[in-house]
Amino acid sequence: MTGFVSLIGAGPGDPDLLTRKAVRRLREADVVLADALVSPQLRALAPGADWIAVGKRGGGEQTPQAAITRQLIDSAAAGLKVVRLKGGDPFVLGRGGEEALALVDAGIAFEVVPGVTAAVSAPALAGIPVTHRGLSSGFIVLTGSNRELIDRVFASIPPGWLTLVIMMGVGSRASLVTRALERSWPAWTPAALILDAATPRMWVWRGSLGQLATVAVPAALSDAPGTIVIGEVAALPIDLINGALATPASLPEEAGHVCA
Amino acid sequence: MTGFVSLIGAGPGDPDLLTRKAVRRLREADVVLADALVSPQLRALAPGADWIAVGKRGGGEQTPQAAITRQLIDSAAAGLKVVRLKGGDPFVLGRGGEEALALVDAGIAFEVVPGVTAAVSAPALAGIPVTHRGLSSGFIVLTGSNRELIDRVFASIPPGWLTLVIMMGVGSRASLVTRALERSWPAWTPAALILDAATPRMWVWRGSLGQLATVAVPAALSDAPGTIVIGEVAALPIDLINGALATPASLPEEAGHVCA
Repeated sequence: MTGFVSLIGAGPGDPDLLTRKAVRRLREADVVLADALVSPQLRALAPGADWIAVGKRGGGEQTPQAAITRQLIDSAAAGLKVVRLKGGDPFVLGRGGEEALALVDAGIAFEVVPGVTAAVSAPALAGIPVTHRGLSSGFIVLTGSNRELIDRVFASIPPGWLTLVIMMGVGSRASLVTRALERSWPAWTPAALILDAATPRMWVWRGSLGQLATVAVPAALSDAPGTIVIGEVAALPIDLINGALATPASLPEEAGHVCA
Repeated sequence: MTGFVSLIGAGPGDPDLLTRKAVRRLREADVVLADALVSPQLRALAPGADWIAVGKRGGGEQTPQAAITRQLIDSAAAGLKVVRLKGGDPFVLGRGGEEALALVDAGIAFEVVPGVTAAVSAPALAGIPVTHRGLSSGFIVLTGSNRELIDRVFASIPPGWLTLVIMMGVGSRASLVTRALERSWPAWTPAALILDAATPRMWVWRGSLGQLATVAVPAALSDAPGTIVIGEVAALPIDLINGALATPASLPEEAGHVCA
């Protein structure tokens, strides 16, 4: 009997934004190794699986990457159907490539089940399209933890060319803005900050790059995953959260993702 | 009675990569306006809906954007549950923002249901992570139709910084490579081309930027949607298509997305 590993993206938060394939794999799974950013609600989708929480959140406890990889390999080698569940998409800043390489090296059969990346969907659920005809025909996704790269991008890419999407940059937003202004990005460049996208706590701020440095984040969301958007698209008058209408009764769910 | 519009991303091709929310909206829909890139298989998911094919493919017939927008507004104003179904994600090079703006202006209630974007998932299903620790901590998504922007990016972004993902650039790959080489990108920069991702016809080529200019595309796929990846990640030894093992019998579906 041969085991199998599915590297699965769980999407940005809402269990409804899982793919059908992800749902089926969870239902069939023997063991699930779930990142901290994955909603605990998803556990109900894998009734027959050992559910193991790994990964880090903020400064909390973290299973070392090598231990995660070891467990994927050992579980599959033991004949189990293994799901590695990551927030968003497994290959967008999720170390999925490292796990895939380790599985190749170990000769373990695996697949990748792409997910809805927060890089695009967190802005989208706020009403911000990362591309928009006449404003931006492309976008850059960066991690806030690579400050050197961010600095290079601000130095190389003139404002107005492309939408910038910065993941994991909420905590360092002040220094990020400083770098942008030093590199001659105008303080009035539109910007947005989205916290806990695709959850009932989703919070959206819109303003300018200059204001982004000092925008206050609600204390309850200080540890929430965040997405920063910089570019003209952040100023489009489409507000799916703060300008929301109630969901029509014919579509009975989540308030907050609806607009008129 | 008030109608409602759902702007929905259908993902890269495989109906299994629809989100649960997209599936539910299709099931409840009165009318579906579907892009040409959306798989006809999805029609079975909307048994109660009028299914209207809009949008273009290659040089074929195309419903003007204004007519699509008009129909969205008129159908919702008539009290219908309307689904606007787009390939990939509605806000990644999909004109979803324009439709959202028109709905705001018309006072029509709507939502956005993000999808799995081909920009990330076409490479992922081939085994290429758009980000990878030590190689690329970010990526740029561009459309091949904006040649001026592509030229600027090649001129501004040194090779090796970020992964480049170019959508709708297969037909112009020769001139794209010429521009990159003129801007001092090395001809040996790894590159990949993915056609008809997430379908049984999915086709993957890997090589170098220099070779990309002249790589022959199978005639049957000359009109297929394509994704170009340029950057070190394209050379990682993870091959989920051409190096595929058969899917284990316990996971009875699509061949081709599995590897060992």
